[in-house]
Amino acid sequence: MYELGVVYRRIVRADGDVAARLGTLGSATVHEALGRAGLMQPYMRPVYAGANASGTAVTVLLQPGDNWMLHVAAEQIAPGDVVVAGVTAACSDGYFGDLLATSFKARGARALVIDAGVRDVRALGEMQFPVWSKAVSARGTVKATLGSVNVPVVCAGALVTPGDVIVADDDGVVVVPAALAAKTLDAAVARDANEAGKRARLADGVLGLDMYDMREPLRKAGLRYID
Amino acid sequence: MYELGVVYRRIVRADGDVAARLGTLGSATVHEALGRAGLMQPYMRPVYAGANASGTAVTVLLQPGDNWMLHVAAEQIAPGDVVVAGVTAACSDGYFGDLLATSFKARGARALVIDAGVRDVRALGEMQFPVWSKAVSARGTVKATLGSVNVPVVCAGALVTPGDVIVADDDGVVVVPAALAAKTLDAAVARDANEAGKRARLADGVLGLDMYDMREPLRKAGLRYID
Amino acid sequence: MYELGVVYRRIVRADGDVAARLGTLGSATVHEALGRAGLMQPYMRPVYAGANASGTAVTVLLQPGDNWMLHVAAEQIAPGDVVVAGVTAACSDGYFGDLLATSFKARGARALVIDAGVRDVRALGEMQFPVWSKAVSARGTVKATLGSVNVPVVCAGALVTPGDVIVADDDGVVVVPAALAAKTLDAAVARDANEAGKRARLADGVLGLDMYDMREPLRKAGLRYID
Amino acid sequence: MYELGVVYRRIVRADGDVAARLGTLGSATVHEALGRAGLMQPYMRPVYAGANASGTAVTVLLQPGDNWMLHVAAEQIAPGDVVVAGVTAACSDGYFGDLLATSFKARGARALVIDAGVRDVRALGEMQFPVWSKAVSARGTVKATLGSVNVPVVCAGALVTPGDVIVADDDGVVVVPAALAAKTLDAAVARDANEAGKRARLADGVLGLDMYDMREPLRKAGLRYID
Amino acid sequence: MYELGVVYRRIVRADGDVAARLGTLGSATVHEALGRAGLMQPYMRPVYAGANASGTAVTVLLQPGDNWMLHVAAEQIAPGDVVVAGVTAACSDGYFGDLLATSFKARGARALVIDAGVRDVRALGEMQFPVWSKAVSARGTVKATLGSVNVPVVCAGALVTPGDVIVADDDGVVVVPAALAAKTLDAAVARDANEAGKRARLADGVLGLDMYDMREPLRKAGLRYID
Amino acid sequence: MYELGVVYRRIVRADGDVAARLGTLGSATVHEALGRAGLMQPYMRPVYAGANASGTAVTVLLQPGDNWMLHVAAEQIAPGDVVVAGVTAACSDGYFGDLLATSFKARGARALVIDAGVRDVRALGEMQFPVWSKAVSARGTVKATLGSVNVPVVCAGALVTPGDVIVADDDGVVVVPAALAAKTLDAAVARDANEAGKRARLADGVLGLDMYDMREPLRKAGLRYID
Repeated sequence: MYELGVVYRRIVRADGDVAARLGTLGSATVHEALGRAGLMQPYMRPVYAGANASGTAVTVLLQPGDNWMLHVAAEQIAPGDVVVAGVTAACSDGYFGDLLATSFKARGARALVIDAGVRDVRALGEMQFPVWSKAVSARGTVKATLGSVNVPVVCAGALVTPGDVIVADDDGVVVVPAALAAKTLDAAVARDANEAGKRARLADGVLGLDMYDMREPLRKAGLRYID
Repeated sequence: MYELGVVYRRIVRADGDVAARLGTLGSATVHEALGRAGLMQPYMRPVYAGANASGTAVTVLLQPGDNWMLHVAAEQIAPGDVVVAGVTAACSDGYFGDLLATSFKARGARALVIDAGVRDVRALGEMQFPVWSKAVSARGTVKATLGSVNVPVVCAGALVTPGDVIVADDDGVVVVPAALAAKTLDAAVARDANEAGKRARLADGVLGLDMYDMREPLRKAGLRYID
Repeated sequence: MYELGVVYRRIVRADGDVAARLGTLGSATVHEALGRAGLMQPYMRPVYAGANASGTAVTVLLQPGDNWMLHVAAEQIAPGDVVVAGVTAACSDGYFGDLLATSFKARGARALVIDAGVRDVRALGEMQFPVWSKAVSARGTVKATLGSVNVPVVCAGALVTPGDVIVADDDGVVVVPAALAAKTLDAAVARDANEAGKRARLADGVLGLDMYDMREPLRKAGLRYID
Repeated sequence: MYELGVVYRRIVRADGDVAARLGTLGSATVHEALGRAGLMQPYMRPVYAGANASGTAVTVLLQPGDNWMLHVAAEQIAPGDVVVAGVTAACSDGYFGDLLATSFKARGARALVIDAGVRDVRALGEMQFPVWSKAVSARGTVKATLGSVNVPVVCAGALVTPGDVIVADDDGVVVVPAALAAKTLDAAVARDANEAGKRARLADGVLGLDMYDMREPLRKAGLRYID
Repeated sequence: MYELGVVYRRIVRADGDVAARLGTLGSATVHEALGRAGLMQPYMRPVYAGANASGTAVTVLLQPGDNWMLHVAAEQIAPGDVVVAGVTAACSDGYFGDLLATSFKARGARALVIDAGVRDVRALGEMQFPVWSKAVSARGTVKATLGSVNVPVVCAGALVTPGDVIVADDDGVVVVPAALAAKTLDAAVARDANEAGKRARLADGVLGLDMYDMREPLRKAGLRYID
Repeated sequence: MYELGVVYRRIVRADGDVAARLGTLGSATVHEALGRAGLMQPYMRPVYAGANASGTAVTVLLQPGDNWMLHVAAEQIAPGDVVVAGVTAACSDGYFGDLLATSFKARGARALVIDAGVRDVRALGEMQFPVWSKAVSARGTVKATLGSVNVPVVCAGALVTPGDVIVADDDGVVVVPAALAAKTLDAAVARDANEAGKRARLADGVLGLDMYDMREPLRKAGLRYID
C-alpha cells in the first residue's frame, strides 16, 4: 500500500484449475470453507445480474480519479486472471468502461473487481465481461499519477496479495490466499457434497430441526414452546 | 423484543383470502388504504426483479450473525405465511440461502422479509422464492444463541405482530395489522377501482389538473403563471 | 430555488435534434465532452435496467412529501421534454407512479429525473417510461403546498435550468446547458468516432500502453518494473 | 403505529424512583441487565456532550416535517417524563428547538428522544435540556397533520410503549419495558457492584485473562501462542 | 458549474451590515424568514462546537482532491466575506488547514463553507476560524487542475451565487440571495421579536396548545382524547 | 486475516522515540511525508475532542460482536503501544469500555484504534484514554470465538502490520510501516519546519499565490481573470 510507482512482473499465481473449481462452488461455500474469512464488504455488487467469475489476482493500486495504472496492469494479465483494484482514497468515479474491458478480455482476464466506480455498464453486460464495483458513474478519470501493479492491496476491506484466488458471484467477492487454495477447495467440495442430500430432504418437508438434530441443543439452551 | 428463548405456537392469523387479495393490489395501494402507515424503510429490496408476495406473518427475532431461530421458525410455518425477521442489532450477514428457502417453500411459506442479509440469491431467483432484505452477503451465520418466534418484532422500522398481513413487491413491504385487514382491503379495492378510469383519461391526454379539479385550489394557494 | 408558487410557461429549449443525438452518444461520452461537468450524483439510478433517454428539461421544484407540482408540470411538457425534479429538503417518498407516467407519456415526455423516490416501478418498466430516482418507495405524497415549475433547480447536486439538455442512461444523468449543447455535441461526436477504431485494436490485443503512447510518460513519471 | 389522531391521557408509568436509579447506572449497564435488548440504533446521538437523562416515556407519533403533535404531547408530560418521538417516514427536519424545550422543561420533562432532527442546539446546551436525535437541522416543520400521543411507537429501531423507562447518555438510548424495570434495576445494580472491584484490580495491572479465568477456555478453544 | 478556469473579480455583494445582522438571528430563524428555502444539507457540520458566522459569499468551484483554486480565491476575499466551495465530484479530502485559514483570516474572511473535507481542525478551533464541512480528513490535496472563482456553485445541495449572504451556526448553513437579503432581515427580525414573549410564557408553564390557539384546529382535524 | 486462533508474542516494533516524535507532528503532516499513503478512512473519529496519540501497533483481529481477543491482546501490550483492532465483518457494537481501558492503561497502552464501536465514552474522556472508533454503542459483546493477536489486519481500509507506527489525532489515523518510520520522520520534520515561516508570512497578508509562485503556472494552465 506504500510502494507507489512499481510494477512487479513476476507473481506466484495459485493453480488455475483450483481457481476455476472454486468458482463453480460459489462465494458463499468458499467463504465458509475458508473459515469465514476473506469476504469483501457487501457493497461490492456485480454490474449485471448473474455475473460470476473466478481466477488469480493481478492487483492494482490506483490513485483517486486516475485510471492510468489499469493500462499498466493490462500488460501483466495472463489468461485466467482477475484484476483487483484498490484506491488510495475513497472514490466513486468511473475508472473502467468498454474500451478497457475489450483490452482486458483480449488479454484473457476473467473479471474486474474494483473498490471504486465503473461505466459503460450496458456494454459490459452485452460483452459479458463481469465487473464487481462499489458504484456506477459516468464520470471518467485522468491519467496523471502513478500507483502500482502487483503489490498487496486492500479492496473493499479485504487484503489481496497478487496470485490469490478470487471468487465472485451474485453473493459477493471472496479472496482465497494462494497458499490456502487447494485446502480450501477440498473443504468446499466436501461442504457442497454434504448440501446436495440435505436439499432433497428439506424439499420433502423434513425440518432442519430434525435433520440437524437441533431439538436437544435448543432445549438445553432454554428454548420454551408456549401453546 | 425482550422475550428471548420463546416460541409461540398459536397465533391468530389474518384471513388468508384477505391477505391474498391485498397482495394483488400492491404495496403502494395498500399503504394508502391503511392511512399511509405500516411501510418498512425503503432500504428493503427484493433480491430479484418482479418479486411479489403476500401472506400472514410468522415473526422471528434473530441475534446478530446467528440464524438458529430461522430453523425453529420453519416448523411454525403454515401454508400462506410470510416469515418476517428482525434482528436485535444491525447485521448484514447472509442468514438465509437456498437450503432454508427449500425448507420454507416445502412448508408453504410465500416469502421471507428480513432486516439483514441473505445469500444464494441466484438460486432464490431460479426457485422463485421471493425475499426482501437489507443486504446480500456471502457471509453465513452460526447457530448458537436463542431468539424467539412469534413475538412482536421491529423489522426495518415497522412493528410486526404475528398474524399480521404482509404485502411485498417492487415498491416495498407493508404491514397490515390483522384487525385492520378486512377494512383495509375494502379501502384498497375502492381506491384501485377509482384508478382504472383515471388511467384511461390520462392516456387520452386529459391533465390531472382538470381531472382532479386542481386549478382552483392552486389559484387559491397563490400559484402564478408567467408568460 | 427561492421562487415558490410560480410557473414559467415560456422557456427556451435547446434544439430537440441536438438533444436526441446527444442521447445516442450516452452520458459518459457527453460528460467528457462537456469538460467533465454537469453529472448528477451517482446515487441517481434508473428504475429498470437498460433505460436511456434524452431531451430538454422542464424543471419542477417540489416540497418534501408533496407531488402537487408534478401535476402542474404535466401541462408544461412539450414532446421531447424530460421532467427534472428537485426537492426543497431530502425526501425518499414515492412522488410518481403509473398514473402520472401515463399522463407524462401522453404529453410527450421522454423521462423523469427526480431527486426523491418513485413507485409502481414494475408498471413503469412495462410501460417503458424511463425514470431515474434516488429511491423506490411505496409511500405516496400529498397535494398541499406550492413549489414551482421551470425555475432553476438543484437535482442530485447538479444545477438544472429549464431548457437544458438531459442525457440519462445506465451510467448516470448529465445536464448540458442549452447554450453549450451544439458545441458539446460536436465534441462528443469527435470523441465517439475516435473510440471506434481503438476498440478494434484493443480487441486485437494491442495494449493501451502502446496505442496511447503511455510508455514514455510512465517512465518519466518514475514507473519501475521489477522482475 | 396505525392509530392516528388519538391522545391517550392515562398511561401506566414505571416507578419514577426506579427510572432515576436506572439512569445513574447508565445505558451500557442497563442494556446488559436487560439481556442485551432494547437499545436504539447507534445513530441516535446527544446534541451536547455529557448529556444524560432517564425517565418514563410519553410517546409521540409524528408525521414527516410536522411537529404539531409535540405541542399536544407537552400537555401530557408529568414531571420525570422523557418524551420519545417516532416518525411515520424518515425525516431529518428540525422538529424541536428552544421554545418547545422551554415548554417541556416547564412541564417537568427530563429529555427528548426523537428519531428525526432538532435545532437551536446551542440554546439546548445552554439550557441543559438534553436531547437525543438522528440529525441537527435548521429546517423547521409545519403544524398541519395529526399523529398520536401515547401510542406504541418505533424509535430508531426500538419499540417504545408509553410508561417504559428510558435511559439515555453518551453511549446511547435504552428502552426498559415498565414491567421489567424493577427486575432490571436489580440486575444492573448487581452488575455495577461487581465492576467496582474489578476496576481496581485492572488498574493494578492484573490481566482480564487471569481475573476472569479465561486462559483455560481460550486454550480449549484452540488458541495458540507463537514466540 | 460549467465555466472552468475563470475568476470573476467584480461581484455584487449583499450589504455587509445586513449580513451581520442576519448572522445574529441564526440559521433557523433566517431559513424560516426566507420561506423555508436555501438550507444546505444537514451533513454540513461546524468543525468546532459553538462556531457561528455570517457574511457575503465568495464562491469557489474545486476539482476533486485539488485545492489550487482556494489560493486563487484568497486574493478575491474582501473583509466580511465567507468563502463557499463546491466540488465537481464528491470528495472528502482535507482541502483546507491552518495555513490557508491564516491566509483567509488575514484577508478578512469570516468563515469557510466547503462541500468536502478539511484538516488541522484543532488548530482551526484554537484560531477560532469557523469552518463548516462535510468531513474531516488528514488527506491533503494537490494543486494541478483549474476550477473557477466567483461563478455560481452548488454546495451541499444549495445554489450559491457570489455575493449572497451566508448564515452558518450549530444548526446548519443557509444561503440568502443578495436581492432578498434586506427583506429577509425584516422578516427574521419580526419573527425573532415574536419569539421573545412566547419564551417567557412557555417558561411559566403556558402550553403551546393555548398560546397558539391550537385546540380548536386540532379538534376540527379530528383529534380525540381517550381517558 | 486468515490465521485465526493465533497470538504472536514477538513482534518487531518501530523505534518508540520515532513514534513519539511522529506523534508531535500530527497525522496530516505524517500522511504527506509518507507520500499520501496509509490513512484510515475518515469515518474513524476520536471519542473526545482533542485526543491525540502515537505509538507502535499491537494488532487484534476480532470476530463480530465478540471482544475476547482484546483481553488476550492486553497481555501483549508493551508501554508505548497503540492497540489496533480490525473485525472480520462490519460491526458497530461497543467492544471496549472503561474496564478494558483501565487495563490497557495499566499495561502502558497509549490508545485504541478500532474499526467498530466502543462505549463508556464519558469515562474514557475523564480517564483521558484516547480511542478512535467507527461508532459509539452501549451494546456490549460476548467472549466466545477466537480471533488473533499480532497478525496483519485491515482497519478502516488500511493494512496494519504489528509494530507499525500509528499516529492519531483530530484529523484522523495514519499507519506508518515500521521500515519507513525513520525516513518518514525526517520528511515530516522537514515539511513542518518549512511551514512555520509560511504561517507568519500568510498572517501578514502575503498571498499563497505569491509565496508559492503560483501566478505563472495558473496563467499557463489557462486561468483567466474577468473584471
